[in-house]
Amino acid sequence: MFEVSTTLTSPLLGDAQNSQLMIIDILRHAIRRHPQQEIVTRRLEGDIHRYHYTDCYQRTCQLAHALTKLGVQPGDRVATLAWNTYRHVELYYAVSGIGAVIHTVNPRLIADQIEWIINDAEATWLFVDLSFISLLEEFAPQLKTVKGIVVLADPDQQPELTHQRLPIYNYERLLDGQPTEYNWPVFSEQAAAMLCYTSGTTGNPKGVLSSHRSTVLHAQAAASAELLDIDSDTVLMPMVAMYHVGAWGAPYAALLTGSKLVLPGAGMSGADMYELITQEHVTVALGVPTIWLTLHNHLHANRLQVPTLARVCVGGAASPLGLVRIFNERYNVYWQPIWGMTETGPLVTSAPPTAEIMALPLEQRYAIQTTAGRPCFGIDMEIFDLDGQPVPHDGVSSGELKVRGPWITGSYFRRHDPDIFTDGWLATGDIAVIDPAGYMKVIDRKKDLIKSGGEWISSLDIENITSQHPAVNECCVVGVAHPKWDERPLLLIVPNGNTLLHKEEIYQFLEGKIAKWWMPDDVIFVDSLPHTGTGKLIKHELRKKYFNLFME
Amino acid sequence: MFEVSTTLTSPLLGDAQNSQLMIIDILRHAIRRHPQQEIVTRRLEGDIHRYHYTDCYQRTCQLAHALTKLGVQPGDRVATLAWNTYRHVELYYAVSGIGAVIHTVNPRLIADQIEWIINDAEATWLFVDLSFISLLEEFAPQLKTVKGIVVLADPDQQPELTHQRLPIYNYERLLDGQPTEYNWPVFSEQAAAMLCYTSGTTGNPKGVLSSHRSTVLHAQAAASAELLDIDSDTVLMPMVAMYHVGAWGAPYAALLTGSKLVLPGAGMSGADMYELITQEHVTVALGVPTIWLTLHNHLHANRLQVPTLARVCVGGAASPLGLVRIFNERYNVYWQPIWGMTETGPLVTSAPPTAEIMALPLEQRYAIQTTAGRPCFGIDMEIFDLDGQPVPHDGVSSGELKVRGPWITGSYFRRHDPDIFTDGWLATGDIAVIDPAGYMKVIDRKKDLIKSGGEWISSLDIENITSQHPAVNECCVVGVAHPKWDERPLLLIVPNGNTLLHKEEIYQFLEGKIAKWWMPDDVIFVDSLPHTGTGKLIKHELRKKYFNLFME
Repeated sequence: MFEVSTTLTSPLLGDAQNSQLMIIDILRHAIRRHPQQEIVTRRLEGDIHRYHYTDCYQRTCQLAHALTKLGVQPGDRVATLAWNTYRHVELYYAVSGIGAVIHTVNPRLIADQIEWIINDAEATWLFVDLSFISLLEEFAPQLKTVKGIVVLADPDQQPELTHQRLPIYNYERLLDGQPTEYNWPVFSEQAAAMLCYTSGTTGNPKGVLSSHRSTVLHAQAAASAELLDIDSDTVLMPMVAMYHVGAWGAPYAALLTGSKLVLPGAGMSGADMYELITQEHVTVALGVPTIWLTLHNHLHANRLQVPTLARVCVGGAASPLGLVRIFNERYNVYWQPIWGMTETGPLVTSAPPTAEIMALPLEQRYAIQTTAGRPCFGIDMEIFDLDGQPVPHDGVSSGELKVRGPWITGSYFRRHDPDIFTDGWLATGDIAVIDPAGYMKVIDRKKDLIKSGGEWISSLDIENITSQHPAVNECCVVGVAHPKWDERPLLLIVPNGNTLLHKEEIYQFLEGKIAKWWMPDDVIFVDSLPHTGTGKLIKHELRKKYFNLFME
Repeated sequence: MFEVSTTLTSPLLGDAQNSQLMIIDILRHAIRRHPQQEIVTRRLEGDIHRYHYTDCYQRTCQLAHALTKLGVQPGDRVATLAWNTYRHVELYYAVSGIGAVIHTVNPRLIADQIEWIINDAEATWLFVDLSFISLLEEFAPQLKTVKGIVVLADPDQQPELTHQRLPIYNYERLLDGQPTEYNWPVFSEQAAAMLCYTSGTTGNPKGVLSSHRSTVLHAQAAASAELLDIDSDTVLMPMVAMYHVGAWGAPYAALLTGSKLVLPGAGMSGADMYELITQEHVTVALGVPTIWLTLHNHLHANRLQVPTLARVCVGGAASPLGLVRIFNERYNVYWQPIWGMTETGPLVTSAPPTAEIMALPLEQRYAIQTTAGRPCFGIDMEIFDLDGQPVPHDGVSSGELKVRGPWITGSYFRRHDPDIFTDGWLATGDIAVIDPAGYMKVIDRKKDLIKSGGEWISSLDIENITSQHPAVNECCVVGVAHPKWDERPLLLIVPNGNTLLHKEEIYQFLEGKIAKWWMPDDVIFVDSLPHTGTGKLIKHELRKKYFNLFME
């Protein structure tokens, strides 16, 4: 699992103190430097909750005592099915603080998968938000290692649970009366801290187990000017879920820098977002492209503006030029692309608005904003052809993206995958180009490339161009079977509100912008497209649905 | 030397890749992300030299090849007597890059001390700037372990050296024709990287040996919004010397973030500084208070402004309120206090201009700017009384400052000092207070406190108030012997230019601002005060000179 690849043994070590990089030190630093900074949450109970970093620390200490009383041991996995709330933040810090492992589970998965994941992780306790109680009842009887369930709710809202063979606790009652200071242990920074399963679309989910070291180094990188670029003047709203790749480490990076943290709870609608942005003066928000489309649709329909919002940091899918442009020209919001995956910590690349970028002509700037950006300090990335040879950084040649660095995973939890982890690299499964200035662009998932007549067509490229049509709200390109060419692209479009769109308009729009042989064989207008719990298009579902369209 | 103080053994380690934090990766990142960013140097040859990060990398590779050819081995100490120049930057990266240790020696020390330090460090090679050749000739014959000397100069300026039993090389000739890429080895991040001796005023100098890990973590902290707050839009000019505490790590932090780096060479005059600031559009400059007094004197005498300069980061001595005010009100430059020492990496605390601080009434803001600031992430600091008990953070109670963190030294090079390194802390020898908001203020060196009638008088406090008198250019308070009170304060003042000052004016000015029994027993006007090579007042010299003043 952990191998020192030293090619030179130094006869002389430095004399620095042996200070370990510990996650709890982020919170301790936060209360020392910004005791009155706020964490604001839209609660599942319905109200807006706000408290100070200091309150967060004290409740985290209470939680640590409660966990110890429940018998949680170092190394134990403590599972959560929870939204972005202050209670989830407390769990992040308290669980890893006592040496256990916070195991965030994605509640958007189906019950069978959740059950499989929690059993695979051998979690000993499960903390659940109010809104996932009925989901919980579906799989709770099949949990093999869980010793008890804690409901994240005010005591008066604690539900009656039926058919449970497990003890049920209330979170607030557990904390009640516990001491507000805790004697945090010191241990190796290599100790496991968080376990997060990738929501793979095929095969069983695979666990990514990060350490205190990788988490702290990632938090520092995330906060730096090369990635999120946040500080104590920032008001940060992560619309990425804490149950999914740790909300991009926002709960760590925010407290590391003293940012005000605004947590949306389960409120993912345009109106909910608009309310929090406006009332809390959010300056930087994190999310997938779909969430910003949702925000735009709300703002546009209600003729609203978001004057405090300076940047949206956007990852999880490619950045469509159309939205980049709209956010700049209509809302004066910089669309900051960011790239990563569960296996990469997750943050690896970005393109923040440096003076150099902001001085470029708009179209050039937009072109950069539709890449994934450039790697931050600590990260090496390279693209390789099928023979494992590095591909030139010419912006044209593509290859599989491989990544390495102190917060990149070196293996999946209790698995052996020599195809994915080779020579110190993580093979991402993304096909990418890197331009001479170092900007990386994912052109497709290895498995989503369309193989037409022995050549590759990038579905992402076609989607990106189509999305710029003013009447296109969302679109998707999938490869479907073809008798002559093996596969051909099919374009699916969700039109804007009441717009009437014709295929011919789309073909005309694409004409000259993509190679002729890339032109989709058909365009189908649909009411909506299927998304994963984390807002990604579920292409394999569409592919399956339409696969035989040209064969019939 | 290196001890793991783990109180909890985790049964589960994380799966992150084993990436080591290596100094050379800072430079590799710099050329990947900002290949065209500039490093500008005022050369000792007289001209202004400029090149790109990429040139720096290529020459660093050439130097690594040259060092290898000279026989430099991993762990070897490679000494330098050199100013802030691009060649010194190349040495910083190449020497540690091949696994050896860059050993910066302070050329402002006397020849005997330099000889002692280089012999104590057992350096194998010595790289010397043109201006230190005559100094070198004083002690070169006594060097015990040095195998050769390399002169940092253009070949046509290489001096004829006399009486040398050691081979002499020219730096440029060594680099000439070497390959511009190097296969940098990977080794433990705990490996030693830099050795820097403290210029102690008593006893032999003591070596501080930092590691790759401590240097990289320090560079990240230094670059962060809590310390220097620099990024790729910054133009950084370190007026602190690369021969002294690594120029506060500026050569690392600048390249880490992509800042333009402006190096003053030996040009420490007001006119030299003004020229570089103006021509290179310097935005942030680093230095001791004396250097900014020098700049102010030049600007004031010539009625000049420095519009690009946003901040001076000031450490090495207390920040006088008078200068804080002048820099804000005359030049619109934020005086940013910063604190640290060789043993602390060096940077530990600061007070950057956050929105919160800039919103304060001016006098409150100035009050913060005359503290040392607050610790950055990674650092713990505490004050302790003589019994080793922590002292409250009330802004009044004082105690000895102790510090810990990943870039704080845990011992001196090849020494055992149990009084200084206890329980994981470094005892700094500074007496400090910490206020409820966490701002630390050094009130004196333990050894500079004036013991009068069994009570302590802070020389720094009196100096700070005196410095606010408009006719005072510089001042110093020392404790001198007194028949009744043991010691009493003596105030020495360098008046501004042509000002005629009387003792009575000074006493009147201090009246009501300090306790009556703190009032200096005498005020003496002098033409200048003695400074160390790094710009600090040499108090013990003044103390010696005037010690019997009241006894005679």
